[in-house]
Amino acid sequence: MTQPADVVAIARDLLRCPSVTPAEGGALAYVADQLGRAGFTVERPVFSEPGHADIENLYARIGSEGPHLVFAGHTDVVPAGDETRWTHPPFASEVAHGVLYGRGAVDMKGAVACALAAALDHLEANGGRPKGSLSFLLTGDEEGVAVNGTVKLLKWAVERGETFDHCVLGEPTNPEALGDMVKIGRRGSLNGALIVHGTQGHVAYPRLADNPVRHMVRLVSALLAEPLDAGSEHFDPSNLEFTSIDVGNKTVNVIPAEARARFNIRFNDHHTQESLKALVEARAVAAAPDARFKIVWEPSNADVFLTAPGPFVGLVSDAIETVTGRAPTLSTSGGTSDARFIKDYCPVIEFGLVNASMHGIDERVPVADLVGLTAVYREIFSRYFG
Amino acid sequence: MTQPADVVAIARDLLRCPSVTPAEGGALAYVADQLGRAGFTVERPVFSEPGHADIENLYARIGSEGPHLVFAGHTDVVPAGDETRWTHPPFASEVAHGVLYGRGAVDMKGAVACALAAALDHLEANGGRPKGSLSFLLTGDEEGVAVNGTVKLLKWAVERGETFDHCVLGEPTNPEALGDMVKIGRRGSLNGALIVHGTQGHVAYPRLADNPVRHMVRLVSALLAEPLDAGSEHFDPSNLEFTSIDVGNKTVNVIPAEARARFNIRFNDHHTQESLKALVEARAVAAAPDARFKIVWEPSNADVFLTAPGPFVGLVSDAIETVTGRAPTLSTSGGTSDARFIKDYCPVIEFGLVNASMHGIDERVPVADLVGLTAVYREIFSRYFG
Repeated sequence: MTQPADVVAIARDLLRCPSVTPAEGGALAYVADQLGRAGFTVERPVFSEPGHADIENLYARIGSEGPHLVFAGHTDVVPAGDETRWTHPPFASEVAHGVLYGRGAVDMKGAVACALAAALDHLEANGGRPKGSLSFLLTGDEEGVAVNGTVKLLKWAVERGETFDHCVLGEPTNPEALGDMVKIGRRGSLNGALIVHGTQGHVAYPRLADNPVRHMVRLVSALLAEPLDAGSEHFDPSNLEFTSIDVGNKTVNVIPAEARARFNIRFNDHHTQESLKALVEARAVAAAPDARFKIVWEPSNADVFLTAPGPFVGLVSDAIETVTGRAPTLSTSGGTSDARFIKDYCPVIEFGLVNASMHGIDERVPVADLVGLTAVYREIFSRYFG
Repeated sequence: MTQPADVVAIARDLLRCPSVTPAEGGALAYVADQLGRAGFTVERPVFSEPGHADIENLYARIGSEGPHLVFAGHTDVVPAGDETRWTHPPFASEVAHGVLYGRGAVDMKGAVACALAAALDHLEANGGRPKGSLSFLLTGDEEGVAVNGTVKLLKWAVERGETFDHCVLGEPTNPEALGDMVKIGRRGSLNGALIVHGTQGHVAYPRLADNPVRHMVRLVSALLAEPLDAGSEHFDPSNLEFTSIDVGNKTVNVIPAEARARFNIRFNDHHTQESLKALVEARAVAAAPDARFKIVWEPSNADVFLTAPGPFVGLVSDAIETVTGRAPTLSTSGGTSDARFIKDYCPVIEFGLVNASMHGIDERVPVADLVGLTAVYREIFSRYFG
């Protein structure tokens, strides 16, 4: 094997690109150039949506046979926040004491650099082509509203005849050290509003009024009292959080006419969106049969999914353990990711860098982690196409 | 006895005055003129307070001996609201089918007219002087913030050496018909804010956050669960109403850092403000010992009071029954009134017109009620000075 690709140089080049959503910032162009030189067929679709910025995306494939492994990710980043608080400027891409600083270092231009370096190495070691097909599916709209990103890019690719066998998504998954954790699923997410109607009146005559706050508290208490489930084989218990209650009554001697609350549910594979709505509504009615209320559900594209342990999960886990010496936890914890879109097309697993500094001041990655994650991805490619 | 004073003419004159708080509108000047002609010593103090309009007031006394009975009231009125919805213009003072229409008809220029007519009749029948002293204590700041009204007028009078033995306040007290109800006390009123501190976080990681909504609902539930008392001999149970809960979190995936609620308590003679605060705070701490919260109490000048049944209450009740044929209920229900200030100086009882139309569109009083209430006040004066 010749000299491996210089992942640190690639990562530094990517971190210099000011690709705060929705700006492309040169990041996808850089990846396109590298993949094009290595023999990938690269396409750069731009997606539009009324009321939103146009977004650049990238799809690059090498090989025409199966199996087809796709590496998915994004090159857009969240804003830097207060730049004066950074030890190193967020887009200067400086390395100090073996640590690379910059917005996107772990979420997730660092992981894109590792996958790119690993792909170059794999092709170099295998005569320039994989034994199957390897693709990059990268968007510039993951940190924003995500309407012109992965969801459209997948649809676009499939309409062109693309099919995928497996996907690795490079989100930062490790709580503390490289190899800690892979994500084999994600809970679903559902938002709702609880609107309680009462009858306005004077506080001195409560019997002539019907205080909606009283019903609201009863409903919220009931919905928080009992867990939605006890968890499942691979998932934590589903969880409901009330994120706001708002009445907005500024008059101290008036009983208000209405109270509103908003809540979010993170749900596991015991539920579908529909079964969950029915459960919550039934519990609310049971708790306050005399209250006048309604629950308004927001549309959600965040369904629960699970890539059940099996050969693909085993392959990725073994590759991680071989390189890092750690057997990763198979987790379904945390928020949602673009895997919620990918799961409709093929099994997907998430593994990337350490997530502790993501979205924060001084986002950073040890150079050793970049080298280690490149080795993990290389090992995955090697086993997958081996 | 000569022809009695024309209470309808007096009431119509008063209702024509556009005395919406803080405007005097000619109403107090009219009363001053009438009382002056009848031999009262009339004074018209004006009170000021930074940030508030100057307010005109009236204090008039006839006689220098005891006993000293004071009739208290106000000539200011609430705004007319949508004047186009009135059957008769709110300041036209029109009589139709035996009913006088106008803002203040029952609350309470109508009752001021009755007391004025009754006083003129009483003096006419008793050689121009009462066997004791009769006073009028009228303000133009009852419907507003009430900082330049009765509270200051009482202080002003007492500083000049005035003392009062008993007071009749002319607020509308009857739910349906003249003679239904007198008020012999009022509940106290206390406002508080409940502020719960939590720890902000992402809804996908609830264990890293501390949702203040959860604690808030627990606290509100506990404070609503158990009555503050079971009522007392003359009072309904004390009552706590939450008038607002506000978090103001617009971000669906964030657990908020703070939640706020506001509440009002109407309390009876089982409590003082201090004992009530201690009770509420103890119940809150017991309900949520692990929550970080505080209760902020607003200053209140609305203490509970009771003019216990006895000779004075009996005299007023008997007078009402003699004139109307009804034995009035001795009530302590409803909101607060200026009696909360008067009770610090002498026993006070409230009796006036029927309150059904007060503050509403087409506020109105049957002419028969004006004649009837004048007769009641005349009977009270006659018995009091008899």
